Amino acid sequence: MRQETIDRIRRFSEERDWDQFHSPENLAKSIVIEAAELLECFQWDGGKFDVQHVKEELADVIVYAQDLLDKLGLDADEIVNMKMEQNERKYPVEKAKGKANKYDQL
Amino acid sequence: MRQETIDRIRRFSEERDWDQFHSPENLAKSIVIEAAELLECFQWDGGKFDVQHVKEELADVIVYAQDLLDKLGLDADEIVNMKMEQNERKYPVEKAKGKANKYDQL
Amino acid sequence: MRQETIDRIRRFSEERDWDQFHSPENLAKSIVIEAAELLECFQWDGGKFDVQHVKEELADVIVYAQDLLDKLGLDADEIVNMKMEQNERKYPVEKAKGKANKYDQL
Amino acid sequence: MRQETIDRIRRFSEERDWDQFHSPENLAKSIVIEAAELLECFQWDGGKFDVQHVKEELADVIVYAQDLLDKLGLDADEIVNMKMEQNERKYPVEKAKGKANKYDQL
Repeated sequence: MRQETIDRIRRFSEERDWDQFHSPENLAKSIVIEAAELLECFQWDGGKFDVQHVKEELADVIVYAQDLLDKLGLDADEIVNMKMEQNERKYPVEKAKGKANKYDQL
Repeated sequence: MRQETIDRIRRFSEERDWDQFHSPENLAKSIVIEAAELLECFQWDGGKFDVQHVKEELADVIVYAQDLLDKLGLDADEIVNMKMEQNERKYPVEKAKGKANKYDQL
Repeated sequence: MRQETIDRIRRFSEERDWDQFHSPENLAKSIVIEAAELLECFQWDGGKFDVQHVKEELADVIVYAQDLLDKLGLDADEIVNMKMEQNERKYPVEKAKGKANKYDQL
Repeated sequence: MRQETIDRIRRFSEERDWDQFHSPENLAKSIVIEAAELLECFQWDGGKFDVQHVKEELADVIVYAQDLLDKLGLDADEIVNMKMEQNERKYPVEKAKGKANKYDQL
């Protein structure tokens, strides 16, 4: 995200004095709550969904993920690259290509 | 995230031919599955957690969120700003300051 | 469930002195964590799943749900009947038949 | 649950012709969606919660769990006893007493 979007998320909480509620644990709960609302868009028919609703719920997930990054002083690029390195090792192209299996079942 | 990090996420799926598994519904399921693994870091004691583990699970959430953005041709900045506008309206500073209530209970 | 199954669940926690960890909040977290592991059985192909794995994860959800009932002194029959009454009112047969819509969109 | 409560849950779906929506996958999604609504009761303050709301959301989890048992022809007592046997082996009293660690960290 652009820095100004990240700043808007931070300002939103600061202005409302909500940092007191944003423990890492509460943010982790919030991410799963919003992720489940996102899933609700696909509850009974995975192929037919309201894009506007998906946008709103996905945005909620991203906002709380940013809040948790901020709370823990983490950088999205750093942790994602660290994890992608693990993923690339666990799922070598020649073994994983075209397969949805977990790494321990490849 | 930086463009090169986003590109790494895309390349990872492309090289493994995983686009076939990445329906919006499957990605929504994956986000909630990873969000619950993140929550597991705080399952029995919300105040004591393994930061490295949190980093890995949060990264997984962010990666699948990026996959869903890509799948639907969405832009993180656009949908987050759209949602923040809604949030700012639903939670006016003067009403919401210091309160954890939902907007319909302010 | 039969009383002896419920008793087995209770004895399991008592013998391990785990009541201290079973706050209502921690049990609610545990239910969602296990529910997501259940969903993982259907992550990439909803139609192909390992029944034994589904049994184990569904059992985990039921066990933690029983733990929460116990913690709050609730009776499954009582709360389910209370909720079914609400559901029957919210989804009248003549309106809801054959439709997957939410009650406010019927 | 008593047989008449289970019958009420079954009749509710039958009368509304909802079996068509109740694939195992859709029910697994529904369980995690309701479990997250249950968790929402504890989102910002795990110690202060609305018992009536908890009852309703926990009932929803139990109802969908029963729907999934029915869909797969499973018996709650059977799968819970099978799982409790695994749990008793994985968490021997002498090792697990008073500890919240996962079995592989005992």
